[in-house]
Amino acid sequence: MNSFNPPIRTLMGPGPSDIHPRVLAAMSRPTIGHLDPEFIRMMDEIKVMLKYAFQTNNEMTMPVSAPGSAGMETCFVNLVEPGDKVVVCINGVFGGRMKENIERFGGTAVVVEDAWGSAVSVDKVEAALQANPDAKILAFVHAETSTGARSDAKTLCEIARKHNCLTIVDAVTSLAGVELRVDDWGIDAIYSGTQKCLSCVPGLSPVSFSERALEKVRNRKTKVPSWFMDLNLVMAYWGSGQKRAYHHTAPVNALYALHESLVMLMEEGLEASWARHAHNHQLLKAGIEGMGMSFVVNEADRLPQLNSVWIPEGVDDATVRSRLLNEYNLEIGAGLGALAGKVWRIGLMGQSSKPEKVLFCLAALKEVLKG
Amino acid sequence: MNSFNPPIRTLMGPGPSDIHPRVLAAMSRPTIGHLDPEFIRMMDEIKVMLKYAFQTNNEMTMPVSAPGSAGMETCFVNLVEPGDKVVVCINGVFGGRMKENIERFGGTAVVVEDAWGSAVSVDKVEAALQANPDAKILAFVHAETSTGARSDAKTLCEIARKHNCLTIVDAVTSLAGVELRVDDWGIDAIYSGTQKCLSCVPGLSPVSFSERALEKVRNRKTKVPSWFMDLNLVMAYWGSGQKRAYHHTAPVNALYALHESLVMLMEEGLEASWARHAHNHQLLKAGIEGMGMSFVVNEADRLPQLNSVWIPEGVDDATVRSRLLNEYNLEIGAGLGALAGKVWRIGLMGQSSKPEKVLFCLAALKEVLKG
Repeated sequence: MNSFNPPIRTLMGPGPSDIHPRVLAAMSRPTIGHLDPEFIRMMDEIKVMLKYAFQTNNEMTMPVSAPGSAGMETCFVNLVEPGDKVVVCINGVFGGRMKENIERFGGTAVVVEDAWGSAVSVDKVEAALQANPDAKILAFVHAETSTGARSDAKTLCEIARKHNCLTIVDAVTSLAGVELRVDDWGIDAIYSGTQKCLSCVPGLSPVSFSERALEKVRNRKTKVPSWFMDLNLVMAYWGSGQKRAYHHTAPVNALYALHESLVMLMEEGLEASWARHAHNHQLLKAGIEGMGMSFVVNEADRLPQLNSVWIPEGVDDATVRSRLLNEYNLEIGAGLGALAGKVWRIGLMGQSSKPEKVLFCLAALKEVLKG
Repeated sequence: MNSFNPPIRTLMGPGPSDIHPRVLAAMSRPTIGHLDPEFIRMMDEIKVMLKYAFQTNNEMTMPVSAPGSAGMETCFVNLVEPGDKVVVCINGVFGGRMKENIERFGGTAVVVEDAWGSAVSVDKVEAALQANPDAKILAFVHAETSTGARSDAKTLCEIARKHNCLTIVDAVTSLAGVELRVDDWGIDAIYSGTQKCLSCVPGLSPVSFSERALEKVRNRKTKVPSWFMDLNLVMAYWGSGQKRAYHHTAPVNALYALHESLVMLMEEGLEASWARHAHNHQLLKAGIEGMGMSFVVNEADRLPQLNSVWIPEGVDDATVRSRLLNEYNLEIGAGLGALAGKVWRIGLMGQSSKPEKVLFCLAALKEVLKG
């Protein structure tokens, strides 16, 4: 068996995105112990920088030691108790996954459905919460990675608060790519991923919990049905005390990488990062429309970092994607679920959101579509 | 905020162990997509090599995308259904964590207790299974990381089979360090960690499931109370079919590292790795006993890779460990739970199991104990 030497790709799918050499270099620094005082100091810096990225003062802000799906599950397994009614918005794959989570932990899901490619309807949510005064949580996806639609998290959280509901928000694809303000918007539980607009390696899930959310966790009648994800236990390791108790062995080197990608975010500035993502979308848009193609999501609700584009009539999805990969080492994303075979997902996230990459992607696509 | 440059430590605690530069270099190779055909090919190679490391033909052999605690939970959350009676052996921290898992998933735990530092008593297990003919699973720790005791996994699995029980085995610290034969011994579900005798970065948990175990998962009356860890879903991504379905985004670069550490294991040979761990324990033992110190675990049950040593009378635990760290950049482990403050845990795992490191550790300890 030989060592694995990956091909050098340009990653413009739904994530992972391209990773800066600084982040790769940070990750390969020598491993130290997960209870080493120097490591604990680095963990504290990660927390500070994640608070900045999320725009929150929540003390319980940290990366879960597993991918975004585990970050999602950490939110639901802690906050949903058997019998809890949860209003969940489905406008793509990840809303559906939220529903699965709710039901697996004994909750009752009240579904607010919107078309794939649309934002979550604020009116439908208002109606659902009015019709279900016993609902305890509103769950929705801020940036639906399967379609590229952005929902109005600020307004949705206002409505939830009015109806005395906690909010669980999926920000896997939004964090650092579009405006997101956890404290100003009153988000109670939020999870993201590292391999999207942070341009870090996949495998970690930054999360943040408000004091209101933690109160619900502390007052649970039953134990959290997960040992690995139980916030009461995780916090003994990631908490703020002097003494950190061993919970699990942290993924040390992946956290080096996250630290470096957050340092880079701070160097750029969060709002500058949002603006860069918006700017490069405009470049892509001009090129895509110039080639006669169109976007799945209307402009007002469109995420700049995740662009679903209708596959032109008569063009074979798989052939185009595999030619892009094999001839140009360029990865773009396939459609998921209801959109499989019908759309491509072009990601302009983190280090992949650069003018040179947009131009290259457009040129390669043009070349391949020539046939 | 500045980049993080870790100090260069020698890791001789209970894990993570020292990591070979080849593994660190592999990890920092450019990220590719988790559905890239080249990545899928690498996943297949990892499966082949993990089967070798576990000595199994189980098709369901793969790394969970999270640390060892999540590997443990993957076994219990899939195999324990509400109402299932599970005989669980506790002779240290990790048996206790198994019990927590059983209870959180609605199982009933029948505890077989042995002293910390002892192996699991085969006779007590036999008696417990006789007294509980309705037990469905026997769970025990092969290599108790909190004490350094090795239990007789082969005999325990024989007894379980005789009583029609499945087995769940914790091999976090044993894999690649001492003899372990999943198929020959008839183990049904096993989990390990990458940061111990494989000398890979922390954050992944290799697992393997027998056909008997999978049958129980497939015949569950209720859904697995976890979406992230549900084997039915995970297998669509890690399975053997041509078509791999997206489940979660794999920790791509950590898997590069695991691949390289497994290539190194195959180069050395599994039995040669076991022999090396045994040999370096003898070196350590001579030095430790020469300094008048003694081991917690009797020789017959002692793990060569995890050495619990009684702290000499009048010596302050924390002072010694922090001097080793600060003056010599040497990490050794503290005691856990009942053994906190009473023992040190010296790990000779993977790349930390080398004569030069044993000599250095003994010399540094001698120097610091001089006072």
